Amino acid sequence: MPQTGSCADTNNYVVREVRLSALTFELIAKDPGSQARLGSLTTTHGKIETPIFMPVGTQATVKAMTPEELVEVGSQIILANTYHLYLRPGHDLVARMGGLHRFMHWDRPILTDSGGFQVFSLGELRKISEEGVQFRSHIDGSKHFISPEVSVAIQEALGSDIAMCFDECPPYPAEYDYVKKSLELTTRWARRCKEAHRRPDQALFGIVQGGMHPELRRESARQIIDIGFDGYALGGLSVGEEREIMYDMMQACSDILPENGPRYIMGIGAPEDLIEGVNAGFDMFDCVMPTRNARNGALFTSTGRINIKAAIYAEDEGAIDAACDCYVCRNYSRAYLRHLYRSQEILASRLNTWHNLHFYLNLMGEVRRAIAQGRFAQFRKEFYAKRAMAEPVFG
Amino acid sequence: MPQTGSCADTNNYVVREVRLSALTFELIAKDPGSQARLGSLTTTHGKIETPIFMPVGTQATVKAMTPEELVEVGSQIILANTYHLYLRPGHDLVARMGGLHRFMHWDRPILTDSGGFQVFSLGELRKISEEGVQFRSHIDGSKHFISPEVSVAIQEALGSDIAMCFDECPPYPAEYDYVKKSLELTTRWARRCKEAHRRPDQALFGIVQGGMHPELRRESARQIIDIGFDGYALGGLSVGEEREIMYDMMQACSDILPENGPRYIMGIGAPEDLIEGVNAGFDMFDCVMPTRNARNGALFTSTGRINIKAAIYAEDEGAIDAACDCYVCRNYSRAYLRHLYRSQEILASRLNTWHNLHFYLNLMGEVRRAIAQGRFAQFRKEFYAKRAMAEPVFG
Ligand SMILES: [Zn+2]
Ligand SMILES: [Zn+2]
Repeated sequence: MPQTGSCADTNNYVVREVRLSALTFELIAKDPGSQARLGSLTTTHGKIETPIFMPVGTQATVKAMTPEELVEVGSQIILANTYHLYLRPGHDLVARMGGLHRFMHWDRPILTDSGGFQVFSLGELRKISEEGVQFRSHIDGSKHFISPEVSVAIQEALGSDIAMCFDECPPYPAEYDYVKKSLELTTRWARRCKEAHRRPDQALFGIVQGGMHPELRRESARQIIDIGFDGYALGGLSVGEEREIMYDMMQACSDILPENGPRYIMGIGAPEDLIEGVNAGFDMFDCVMPTRNARNGALFTSTGRINIKAAIYAEDEGAIDAACDCYVCRNYSRAYLRHLYRSQEILASRLNTWHNLHFYLNLMGEVRRAIAQGRFAQFRKEFYAKRAMAEPVFG
Repeated sequence: MPQTGSCADTNNYVVREVRLSALTFELIAKDPGSQARLGSLTTTHGKIETPIFMPVGTQATVKAMTPEELVEVGSQIILANTYHLYLRPGHDLVARMGGLHRFMHWDRPILTDSGGFQVFSLGELRKISEEGVQFRSHIDGSKHFISPEVSVAIQEALGSDIAMCFDECPPYPAEYDYVKKSLELTTRWARRCKEAHRRPDQALFGIVQGGMHPELRRESARQIIDIGFDGYALGGLSVGEEREIMYDMMQACSDILPENGPRYIMGIGAPEDLIEGVNAGFDMFDCVMPTRNARNGALFTSTGRINIKAAIYAEDEGAIDAACDCYVCRNYSRAYLRHLYRSQEILASRLNTWHNLHFYLNLMGEVRRAIAQGRFAQFRKEFYAKRAMAEPVFG
């Protein structure tokens, strides 16, 4: 893993090293009352403060938002889906258009997933072998094959700042033996990904699998760390398991993953899941929840979730969240937002998404401030108290 | 009709008069080579330069746009639909929320139509009598009744700057006798609208009908002018007739309508229709064409219309229109816009609408500059030449 090294105090040296390596991670502070960490991640397209939430831009657009609006709500990095962009418009086309950043008019960091999760979600439409996965497109049924090498090549063509290893995501529930075999395949694929990876301006993260078995998670983590990547992610969570099981898996891995590199939990989650991820020492998160929920009228507030469809909001002149200072809460009433939602107006999706993303990114900003001030444990307590929720207990 | 009067050169006087009357119109310049006029319309929510295009905000939102974006593309006034807002969320609710401007976060002028056109478009679902129109909601089939008095009351509750008289819009084609009877009903309804209208901060425009019969158009215009309104509109155009017939109807009325008041053609149209409307001496236009076409991928350019779906744009790195300096053309390629459209992304509707509205409002800005410089006739020639279109000839 690239290090800022002992010369990090001379600016010239740091800049030069950032250009030579695809990623540097600086651990800025550790919370005294939890495993929470404050960090800074430098990628080819700039710096990210961690812990961070990454809005999901599946098809080279975070649904309903412009890049400028993403910046306005505090987005520092976004995620794009390799599977979707491979199928449409095609990674070669994106490469010919100057890469994903230029194509979608976003000049900040981008992380691409490997396509693994989407392919495995296809169910009957795919067939796994040692070599890779054969599957049919959800768009037109056409046949495709993705291997670790193909996934890396697609991500290199897209030109993301951070690429992910192609992994196998076991179903839930799954037997111990199946999960053990699966994580070993994921390890072999990770080795092939690292060997195939060429772009010097792109970081590559390894993915830890192991289902819902703590010892398999730890085994997978050790194998993936052994290969050596720029960062490490937990994959295969939030696939239907109980929240407590998910939290146990985070805890099972956090002390194994290297402290001097970024730690990422893929595809979670609700605000409380982010809090628990941070509490367990993780730095990066992504999820469609804020954007998808927004389009369904489910809005996050500092005291819990509301659904703007509800009749009680018909003449409510208040903002979505009185504690929120986003563009939407400054200018629109719940009554108007309810009207837009019921009228199936595009502006409903826009404003709801805007507020929800602002909520998530603002929450992560508060999390970072709390860690910087050494009071994350207290912040976490208050987070649950505001929502009248019980705080998860571990150990 | 309110006049700025001979004291228009003293600013204080003008301001005071604007507050006393709902609308003043100032004729600034007349083009020497056509009937085109440059004007300024002052409403309760501010001043509008004419000729002007009004984006349509059917359900208290111009589809896919925020109010700030409407301002950025040059919108000075928007239109909202009385029929839609009456049904959902209801005009009383809008009034309790502080009126339409506050409800939708738009502080510039708003014009509301009367609901007449929408109600008549319901076909089998409505029944016309002297008293008004009984109809069933397109949303839930519930029974409703709108009369001239009800239409005025709804528009007063919405609080638009300019209200329109409730009119009967005859079908096309329609027999001379039917159209004659219909325009007389529209005249009686216009008288009832004027009598019912109370809000001193809201202007009321009369609507000229008369189908596609020039002499009936002129007859209707004379009857409506005789009642006396703050402005006059042509209704019932662009209902399926040939373009040339529509242009003939504009020409038939333009010399009858008072020169010292605003003239509005409702529900048109394509860019060339606006040019012809201006050429015939009209000042205000509205149409769903730029917004609806945008959502279907049809984009306006200075050399004609394109459809972004077309395969030829798959790898086109150019902007929609090289001559356009809007946010979309500055930042996105045709290749990306085609990808968004094919992927059914909300951002496709947003960016396409943004460009199309910019195109319409920028065109009207060019029209105003051409009139101010006395070269509108030349501008019109060039407009058609750029598109390789034949210029309509009259007389
Ligand atoms: Zn908000
Ligand atoms: Zn443009």
